[in-house]
Amino acid sequence: MPGEFAFIDSLRARVRSNDGVVRGIGDDAAIVRFAPGEECVVTTDTLVAGVHFPLDAAPADIGYKTAAVNLSDLAAMGATPRFCTLALTLPSLDGGYVEPLIKGLLALLDTHQVALVGGDTTRGPMSLTLTAIGSLPAGTALGRDGARAGDVVYVSGTLGDAAAALALRGQRGDSLDGERKLARTRLQQRLARPTPRVALGQALRGIAHACIDVSDGLAADLGHICRASGLAAVLDSVALPASRALLTLVDDPGQRLALQLGGDDYELCFSVAPENEEQLAAIAAATHTALTRIGTLGPGEGVHFLDADGRIMSAPAAGYEHFR
Amino acid sequence: MPGEFAFIDSLRARVRSNDGVVRGIGDDAAIVRFAPGEECVVTTDTLVAGVHFPLDAAPADIGYKTAAVNLSDLAAMGATPRFCTLALTLPSLDGGYVEPLIKGLLALLDTHQVALVGGDTTRGPMSLTLTAIGSLPAGTALGRDGARAGDVVYVSGTLGDAAAALALRGQRGDSLDGERKLARTRLQQRLARPTPRVALGQALRGIAHACIDVSDGLAADLGHICRASGLAAVLDSVALPASRALLTLVDDPGQRLALQLGGDDYELCFSVAPENEEQLAAIAAATHTALTRIGTLGPGEGVHFLDADGRIMSAPAAGYEHFR
Repeated sequence: MPGEFAFIDSLRARVRSNDGVVRGIGDDAAIVRFAPGEECVVTTDTLVAGVHFPLDAAPADIGYKTAAVNLSDLAAMGATPRFCTLALTLPSLDGGYVEPLIKGLLALLDTHQVALVGGDTTRGPMSLTLTAIGSLPAGTALGRDGARAGDVVYVSGTLGDAAAALALRGQRGDSLDGERKLARTRLQQRLARPTPRVALGQALRGIAHACIDVSDGLAADLGHICRASGLAAVLDSVALPASRALLTLVDDPGQRLALQLGGDDYELCFSVAPENEEQLAAIAAATHTALTRIGTLGPGEGVHFLDADGRIMSAPAAGYEHFR
Repeated sequence: MPGEFAFIDSLRARVRSNDGVVRGIGDDAAIVRFAPGEECVVTTDTLVAGVHFPLDAAPADIGYKTAAVNLSDLAAMGATPRFCTLALTLPSLDGGYVEPLIKGLLALLDTHQVALVGGDTTRGPMSLTLTAIGSLPAGTALGRDGARAGDVVYVSGTLGDAAAALALRGQRGDSLDGERKLARTRLQQRLARPTPRVALGQALRGIAHACIDVSDGLAADLGHICRASGLAAVLDSVALPASRALLTLVDDPGQRLALQLGGDDYELCFSVAPENEEQLAAIAAATHTALTRIGTLGPGEGVHFLDADGRIMSAPAAGYEHFR
């Protein structure tokens, strides 16, 4: 089992740098540089064993997801991810566990050319905190407070896969046929390795008025945009996009809707002016990301849902809040 | 007990901003801005209950120390601390615990005009991860690799107080007289609330060739400078600065030396060319920080100690490494 310094040395040998890194891993702190006029966007997320992932989760998935949730936050701002630091707390630096974890983390960081520039390793109950730093031209960030009355609400990809994977975890899959087994595996992958919508976020700069990533659940997250922008959202519940895997495994529309609001999707939910809608098709094509119109914003407050007949529904189940 | 969002709202209302904050707490990520030509220095440190502080430590001290160890890393680079993010993992957001913790954290951040710009709160075994971001003029950072043969080695403040406080923790203080009781309290304060040498670090830009903060222990930390710079250090063991409190409580010179090498001091250890030594008196006066010459750097490798008679000693006990 390597010591802390040996672990850091081996990590330093494996991480990729990029042209903004003045000094990476190995000093008291990292130094990163931006071009003049570039803003530096910072986000931190912690994943705790037993809370954000099951104790028996594959370490490679844990590493991957830690990177994914942070990059998703940067994507929701429209930022280009550039650098990150990792604070890794583990009971031991057992190579059989930590190696795949780092591999899973670097896999996604490398895909997006994000340089791991420093961090901290400590002994304790397992948790990972990644702080990611991105950049964007000054004044172009996508906030929560920029939505306007009359905006149309869109969401990327599909909703509900991660929540369905969680809900199905307890159930045995023995009796499933081939198609349903495959669907279940697909849901589990979406939970374990969510896709941060990095290219989409950047493409939405100058187009979207407000943007957020769906982590706590659509109602909770879009609720943040509504509150920050002083608006109400009215969403078409039957328009919420569902994956083929979710449709295959969950027949009941009510059950499906509850899962679609369950969170952990890491899709982007954003608002655009109606006159900008036609630009979205090109963005969807360029970023290989499905975009679905799910509702509108207007005066008022809160997030409301219409049923298949266009009648307003009583509030569906909300998403996730820690410490409730 | 407040929920996560209420906690974040209350935190947002209390943190100070600064002129580099474009967007602070409350969106998917924070946005900070630097002047052209300014570099951004990033550091992350985790403090875990039962590892970095005792389970019964005062929460205000835990918050203070979390800020202190991060600012100390920035100080060791010569950076001006500007922003930070906090990842807070707690079994519950119990106000009686979290309030003083945040108060202790903000106390030190406010002193140095550091803006808390975001973070994450999660439920789990208690730990705090702070990521601090500082700035400095491009190319002026104090690294570990800049030391030169012939440099003189200095250390700020005094060494050994924190290690002595830890060593004395198990012992009852009932039989101590007034002076020794006071000394013990002083040591405990140095362990609980170390002083990051922020002003000193900045003052050493352009003067020091290499700099590091003493966290793992003088031999381990100066060892990093020696390794990175390809040099050996020879230190005068009797020159290592000791506080009055340490001298009062620990008579035995051997014991005292072991404590002085124990780490957790958060003093700066740095090297300067002999011709720059005379500038240090002015820096010491301007930053209200004692600076002590403790040795020299030359060809070779490792950190070596001379005894009172100038004879080379066998290696004294080393500092702290996680996972050993």
